[in-house]
Amino acid sequence: MTADKIVPRAKHIVLTSHPTRFGPKPIPIHWGESDPIKRGPIIGTLSNAAHRNVIGSHSGSYGVYRALAVASGRLQSNHRADLTNTAPAERIGPHLSWFDPDKIVSLDPFGALVGEVYPSYQEQGYDIRPTIAITKAHINMPELADAVAKGRLQLDGTLVKAGGDLVVTKAAIEPVWYLPGLAKRLQVSESELRRALFEQTGGMFPELVTRPDFHVFLPPIGGATVYIFGDPAAITDPTKPLAVRVHDECNGSDVFGSDICTCRPYLVHGIEACVQTAQEGGAGVIVYLRKEGRALGEVTKFLVYNARKRQEGGDRADAYFTRTECVAGVQDMRFQELMPDVLHWLGITRIDRFISMSNMKHDAITRSGIEIMERVPIPDDLIPMDAKVEIEAKKAAGYYTEGEVLTETGLAEIKGRSLVE
Amino acid sequence: MTADKIVPRAKHIVLTSHPTRFGPKPIPIHWGESDPIKRGPIIGTLSNAAHRNVIGSHSGSYGVYRALAVASGRLQSNHRADLTNTAPAERIGPHLSWFDPDKIVSLDPFGALVGEVYPSYQEQGYDIRPTIAITKAHINMPELADAVAKGRLQLDGTLVKAGGDLVVTKAAIEPVWYLPGLAKRLQVSESELRRALFEQTGGMFPELVTRPDFHVFLPPIGGATVYIFGDPAAITDPTKPLAVRVHDECNGSDVFGSDICTCRPYLVHGIEACVQTAQEGGAGVIVYLRKEGRALGEVTKFLVYNARKRQEGGDRADAYFTRTECVAGVQDMRFQELMPDVLHWLGITRIDRFISMSNMKHDAITRSGIEIMERVPIPDDLIPMDAKVEIEAKKAAGYYTEGEVLTETGLAEIKGRSLVE
Repeated sequence: MTADKIVPRAKHIVLTSHPTRFGPKPIPIHWGESDPIKRGPIIGTLSNAAHRNVIGSHSGSYGVYRALAVASGRLQSNHRADLTNTAPAERIGPHLSWFDPDKIVSLDPFGALVGEVYPSYQEQGYDIRPTIAITKAHINMPELADAVAKGRLQLDGTLVKAGGDLVVTKAAIEPVWYLPGLAKRLQVSESELRRALFEQTGGMFPELVTRPDFHVFLPPIGGATVYIFGDPAAITDPTKPLAVRVHDECNGSDVFGSDICTCRPYLVHGIEACVQTAQEGGAGVIVYLRKEGRALGEVTKFLVYNARKRQEGGDRADAYFTRTECVAGVQDMRFQELMPDVLHWLGITRIDRFISMSNMKHDAITRSGIEIMERVPIPDDLIPMDAKVEIEAKKAAGYYTEGEVLTETGLAEIKGRSLVE
Repeated sequence: MTADKIVPRAKHIVLTSHPTRFGPKPIPIHWGESDPIKRGPIIGTLSNAAHRNVIGSHSGSYGVYRALAVASGRLQSNHRADLTNTAPAERIGPHLSWFDPDKIVSLDPFGALVGEVYPSYQEQGYDIRPTIAITKAHINMPELADAVAKGRLQLDGTLVKAGGDLVVTKAAIEPVWYLPGLAKRLQVSESELRRALFEQTGGMFPELVTRPDFHVFLPPIGGATVYIFGDPAAITDPTKPLAVRVHDECNGSDVFGSDICTCRPYLVHGIEACVQTAQEGGAGVIVYLRKEGRALGEVTKFLVYNARKRQEGGDRADAYFTRTECVAGVQDMRFQELMPDVLHWLGITRIDRFISMSNMKHDAITRSGIEIMERVPIPDDLIPMDAKVEIEAKKAAGYYTEGEVLTETGLAEIKGRSLVE
């Protein structure tokens, strides 16, 4: 426990706040300004309501656990983070892309640098928290040790160490949504977006509608993790090659190795390509996004698995997307339109090897102004047996492939396991 | 897209709802009732506000993406899930524990069975969604193939197939919080809990304070996934052995194999124990909980890594917990008090092999009335080099061990890597 003074809580509960002409105004945020002081800090503190200049709270959905900690008396509501020694282990940016209010709308490019750019505000008592943290790690995946043993990856003592340990730089990123930019990206009006975010979540954050003066929202959703292989400076060096995989979370495959999809095998293949590209003097980037089950969640995902495997004719590629649409109303909810933001945070303008077959990801990235030179499909021998239904269905729907795209008849012949096998 | 009629939206925005004596009352929920009709369905629909009897919306934090889908016109706000063929692939329960309002407070035990127990309400037009989905899968982790190759696991053709494929039953579970029970579990008043959940999240869901008649909350946080090895019926058979590991998400290790902690190695060891126990005629259960970085989130986790590795004297076991406390105000925010709920949903009353050294998990489980016969520590040869700081610090703080517990002097000598190594 900290030694901070306990602040007595007000007796009345304020149901929502409203902009007022009285009292101190919160520090304004001018999204896209290049001078971080002019841009203004993101202040989501809960210890001083008058300082807040955003809707929502920090740590994504973990803010709910924080509330439990305060409720149960384990955490003082006015705890302020001691950020000693937490500064980024590697420097990322600033890049030109940070200063374009349309290029990045779903994260705060200055999120890792708050200790460096806002010391004056912190000295004035403002509680400014990093929304990005950058550290270093050694990672080891059994498949990569195998790649070393089989000679596909070479030990070099700096990036690939004995036993297949990889030295990486990694960044965790919390979502910070600039609502006018998000609305523009989704081609809706800001007020429509705010209203839907409020109403279609069951009434979450009335400030979405009562605080039109607050343009930034910290949504309670998962963020992103970036793994960088090789020298981060090579990412933005036009003379050096860059490999990128943008990977959407799939717990069942990424952790447990379920054979119904290609997620982990493709992730591992992406890391291998990243390491090879780094060893050629370039860099590799894996972006891991918390969007389980195409951002529909794992309950919906498992419901769809059952529906796929029990439908008349069994699980098959020609009916792959239909089952998700029946349950969820859409085939996909990942909003790849927001995904390129993290690439722009890294300052990426060209991807030499894009380790993904997704046309949605490819199109979102190229539309955002990043060039993609080569697309690398998953090698056939990495596709688990039961995952052929998915991969053939996706190829027929527009996924990148150098091979054959099946017709309706061919798709109907690609079948997966039933639930009793 | 569905063919449903588009319902025109009201022009005015309702900032929060209040209980009223006028109009139709929502179906009441009597938590802990054994008859599911008397208990009442959980209705978190957004297409008919008058039907709602809970606070919040379905799919945990993915409700936010759903709102984006509606805002951008890709999903009709009145879409109703077609649940054909989605019923559980294995039957779980009902168990006696389901009918004790204090035993389970953070999930809906009937969550997987809504199609079976509430058809009458569904026929009346109520939109009732499963909060639990149960399916089957084949999984394969490279380490387990190695266990087969080395003879620690035997192929049996049913549970362990050629190549080390494991046949599992798995369940995804969304959080459903019964607020009076949650308050009791955390030893606070319900009104204090509601107020903290509202205020300490930055004003999320005013219904937490304006709807005291709604006792159930669907919080926007991650849920749990249960992996069952062997016959699910063996889980509750007192004559058969049961192995359990309760695992809290750690993306850096579980997916990427970071060597700073023991998460993935211990998870794999847990799965091995589950398979062995199932092959002895019993069953094994892995519970995977979405509580990244001790429910502090990954940004905080990486900030703490930096602080640990840069502190005076370097990363060392005697200062392991202090750094988290400096940044987060607490050492841990996982609230293990809620964790046993999933074990009670499975009907577990005795765990023969508990694959965990956590005293917090052990104590929460035994306090909830489940016996633990044997505790299985992680084998020393599975502890990555840099993870010794963590494991020795935890052992000194009360983690279960059959070996030596280091004193302050000994702890100070256990050191990890710096950020430049």
